[in-house]
Amino acid sequence: MLRKLLAELLGTFWLVFGGCGSAVLAAGYPDLGIGFAGVSLAFGLTVMTMAYAVGHISGGHFNPAVSLGLAVARRFVWRDLLLYWFAQVLGATLAAAALYAVASGKVGWIASNFASNGYGVLSPGGYSLTAALVVEVILTAGFILVILGSTAARAPQGFAPLAIGLTLTLIHLVSIPVTNTSVNPARSTGVALFAETNALGQLWLFWIAPLLGATIGALVWRVIGSDDEVG
Amino acid sequence: MLRKLLAELLGTFWLVFGGCGSAVLAAGYPDLGIGFAGVSLAFGLTVMTMAYAVGHISGGHFNPAVSLGLAVARRFVWRDLLLYWFAQVLGATLAAAALYAVASGKVGWIASNFASNGYGVLSPGGYSLTAALVVEVILTAGFILVILGSTAARAPQGFAPLAIGLTLTLIHLVSIPVTNTSVNPARSTGVALFAETNALGQLWLFWIAPLLGATIGALVWRVIGSDDEVG
Amino acid sequence: MLRKLLAELLGTFWLVFGGCGSAVLAAGYPDLGIGFAGVSLAFGLTVMTMAYAVGHISGGHFNPAVSLGLAVARRFVWRDLLLYWFAQVLGATLAAAALYAVASGKVGWIASNFASNGYGVLSPGGYSLTAALVVEVILTAGFILVILGSTAARAPQGFAPLAIGLTLTLIHLVSIPVTNTSVNPARSTGVALFAETNALGQLWLFWIAPLLGATIGALVWRVIGSDDEVG
Amino acid sequence: MLRKLLAELLGTFWLVFGGCGSAVLAAGYPDLGIGFAGVSLAFGLTVMTMAYAVGHISGGHFNPAVSLGLAVARRFVWRDLLLYWFAQVLGATLAAAALYAVASGKVGWIASNFASNGYGVLSPGGYSLTAALVVEVILTAGFILVILGSTAARAPQGFAPLAIGLTLTLIHLVSIPVTNTSVNPARSTGVALFAETNALGQLWLFWIAPLLGATIGALVWRVIGSDDEVG
Repeated sequence: MLRKLLAELLGTFWLVFGGCGSAVLAAGYPDLGIGFAGVSLAFGLTVMTMAYAVGHISGGHFNPAVSLGLAVARRFVWRDLLLYWFAQVLGATLAAAALYAVASGKVGWIASNFASNGYGVLSPGGYSLTAALVVEVILTAGFILVILGSTAARAPQGFAPLAIGLTLTLIHLVSIPVTNTSVNPARSTGVALFAETNALGQLWLFWIAPLLGATIGALVWRVIGSDDEVG
Repeated sequence: MLRKLLAELLGTFWLVFGGCGSAVLAAGYPDLGIGFAGVSLAFGLTVMTMAYAVGHISGGHFNPAVSLGLAVARRFVWRDLLLYWFAQVLGATLAAAALYAVASGKVGWIASNFASNGYGVLSPGGYSLTAALVVEVILTAGFILVILGSTAARAPQGFAPLAIGLTLTLIHLVSIPVTNTSVNPARSTGVALFAETNALGQLWLFWIAPLLGATIGALVWRVIGSDDEVG
Repeated sequence: MLRKLLAELLGTFWLVFGGCGSAVLAAGYPDLGIGFAGVSLAFGLTVMTMAYAVGHISGGHFNPAVSLGLAVARRFVWRDLLLYWFAQVLGATLAAAALYAVASGKVGWIASNFASNGYGVLSPGGYSLTAALVVEVILTAGFILVILGSTAARAPQGFAPLAIGLTLTLIHLVSIPVTNTSVNPARSTGVALFAETNALGQLWLFWIAPLLGATIGALVWRVIGSDDEVG
Repeated sequence: MLRKLLAELLGTFWLVFGGCGSAVLAAGYPDLGIGFAGVSLAFGLTVMTMAYAVGHISGGHFNPAVSLGLAVARRFVWRDLLLYWFAQVLGATLAAAALYAVASGKVGWIASNFASNGYGVLSPGGYSLTAALVVEVILTAGFILVILGSTAARAPQGFAPLAIGLTLTLIHLVSIPVTNTSVNPARSTGVALFAETNALGQLWLFWIAPLLGATIGALVWRVIGSDDEVG
C-alpha cells in the first residue's frame, strides 16, 4: 500500500509541477511562449507519462475526483479513498512548493494567481460561478467516462494512458479561459495555498464540481458500460 | 441497442462540446489563445478519446457521414442508420445548448457564428461555395478511407482510434479557413441552431458534402481494400 | 499490383492535399493561423493516418525517396520502383490541382510559391543551396533510418506509422525555414507545377537530395540493423 | 557492441540536430515560427522516433544521464557506461557541427547562444543558478522515473518510446525559460562548443544536475518499482 501511495504522490507531484509549471514559467513568455495550447499539452502529458510509468502500481489516479469516480464505478475500494486523497493532495502541495522555489528564482517575479483556479473575478476570461460549475461538472464527467471506458476489458489494451492523458489536454483546450481548468481538486488545492489572490476562498467549487462530475460520469458508465468489467 | 445509441449521443456531445467549445471559448483569447491549431487538436482528441472509451460499445461513429460510409462499405447495417443519425444530432444539439450556457456566462458575450460552418460570406476566409463543397467532399472521403483502412482486419489492432482522431485534427488544420470545417452534419446542425448568423440557411451543404464524400470514400475502399474484411 | 498503386496514389494525394493544403490555406491566417508548427503536424498526420489505413496494402511509402531507400535496404523489389514513383507523382499532382481549385475559391488569392520547395531566393528564410542540400540529405537519411528501424522485426509491432508520421512532423519543425521542407520528390513536383515562382527550376535539388539521403540512410541501417530482418 | 554505440551516436545526433535545430532555425521565425511549444515537440519526437527505430539495438538512451540512471537501477551494466557516454557526446557534437553548417548558410546569421543551456545571465528568462539546479534535478528525476516505469515488465508493452519521448516534450514545455532545458549533458556539451556566449563556462551544471537527478529518480524507482523487473 505504501508503494501505491508513494506512486500517487509522485504522479500528482508531476501533474502539478509539469502542468502548473508550464503555465507559470512558460505560457506568457514574450513572443515564444507556449500559450494555453502548450499548457493544455503539458497537463495531458503529465498524466499520460506517469500513467505509463506507475499506472501498473497504483492505478494512476493522481486526482481525488478520479479515485471517487472509480469507487462509484466499483473499480476502486472505498476504504482506500481517503488515503489516496491524502497522498494526492500532499504530492500536489509539495509540487506547488517546488514550483514556487523555481519561479521565485527570477528577479521581480510575483506569484499572482500562481496557476490557481477561479470563477468570477478570478476566472481568466471573467466567467460566472454558474459557467464555471457547469463546465467543470461536464468535463469531469467526460473525463471519468473516458477513464472507465478506455480501461474496460473490451477496450484496446495499453492505450488507456494515451486516451486519458489526451482527454486532460482536450479539457484544458476548452476550459482554461473559464476556470483555468481544474477537474482535479488536488491540483487546485496545491497551488491555491501559494496564490496571492483569494484562490483559497474559491477552492470549495473545485472540490464540489469535479467530485460531482466524477460521480455523474461513473453512474452514466454503469448504464452504458459493458457487463464484462474487470474488478 | 439503447446502450449503443446512448454511446453515440454521448460521443457526439463530447465532439461538439469539446471541439466547438475550444473554438468558442479559447481560440481567440488575447495573446494566449489556442488558435486554429488548438481547435484542430481539440476536435481530433474528442473523437480519439471517446473512440477508445465507447468505440467497443457503438463503433464510435459520432457522425452521420461516418455511419453512412460504414453502411456503404458493408460494415454497418442500414436499418440502424436513422437511429444512429438521430442520436448523433440529439447529442450535438444538447452539447451546443450546454456550450451556450457556459459561453453566455461571460458579460457582454455574443454568440456570433457560434463555431458554425459556412461558405461565401460565412466562410472564415471568404471562400466560395464551390471551394467549400470540394474541400468538404475530399476531406470526408479521406476520413472514411482512414476509418475503413485502419479498422480493417489486417491493420495494426488498437490504433484505429488514434489514426481516426488525428485524421480529424489534420482535416481541421487544412480547412478551418474555408468552411470552419464540418465533415460532420451533426456537428454542423447542433451549433447552427444557436448561431446568430444565417448558418441554418447554409446547413444543407454540410449535410450534402460530407454524405457525398463519405460515399465516395467507401466506394474507393471497396476497390482498394483487402478481401478479408471483418463483418 | 493495381490496388497497391492506387493506395500509393491516394496516400500521396492525401500527403500533398493535407500537408501543402494546411500551408496554403491555414498557416498565415491572421491571428489564428496554424503557423509552421501546425503545418509540421499536418504533414506528419497525413503519413501517419494513411500508413495505418493503407500501409497494409502498399507498404505506405507515399514518397519516391522512401521507395528507393527500402529497395536499397532490400525491403522492396527494384522492379516495382518506377511504378511506385509514377503513382506517387501522379497522386501529388492531382492533389496540387485539387488544392489549387480550393485555394483559388477566395477572391484575390494568388498562388505565389504554392508551398513549393526552394533554396536561395526561394528559401523561406533565405538559406543557401548548400544549406538546403545538407539539411535535406541529413533529414531524409534520418527519416529512412526511422522507417527501417521502426518496421524491423524486433521493433514494437504496430507503432511504425506513429513513429514514421511523427518523424515527418519533426523534420518539418526543423527545416521549413530552410527549404520549406521536401524530403519527398513527389510532394515537391506536384506543387512546383502550379507555383508562380521558379520552383520548377530548382526542382532538381528536391529529387537529388532526398534520393541521396535515403540511400545513405538505408546503407547506414545495413550496418547497424539487426540480422533478423523480415523480407 | 559497435552496433550499439553507433546506434547511440546516431540517436543523439538526431536529438541535437532535430531538437536544437528546431530552436536555432525555426523557433523565432517571424510570425509563423514554432516557438517554445514547437521546440518542445521537436525534442520529444527525436527521442520517440529513434527509440522506436534503434531502441531495440542499443536501448535508446541518447543521454548520459539516462545511461547512469539505468545503471543505478540495475538495468544497464556499469562497464559500458563510459563507452555509451563517449558515443553520445560524439553524436551530439557532430550534430552541432552539422547544424552550424546549415544555420550559417543564411547571410548575416550569428550563432549567439546556439540553443545552449544556461543560468543567470545565460538563462532565457533570467533565472538564478539555484532555480536552474532545482528544475533540472527534478525534471531529470521524473524523466528517469518514467523511463524505468514505462519499460517495466508490467507496463503496457511497446508504448515506452511514446511515453519517454513525450516526457521530454513535457520537460521542455516547463523549463525552456529557465535553462533552455538540458536534462541531457551530451546535448548541452555539443552545442556549447559552438556558442558565442560563455555556455562552456556553465556546462558543469548541465552535467551535475542531470546526473544527480537521474540518480535520485533511479533510487526512487528502486523503492516504488515492482519486484518483477527484467534484467
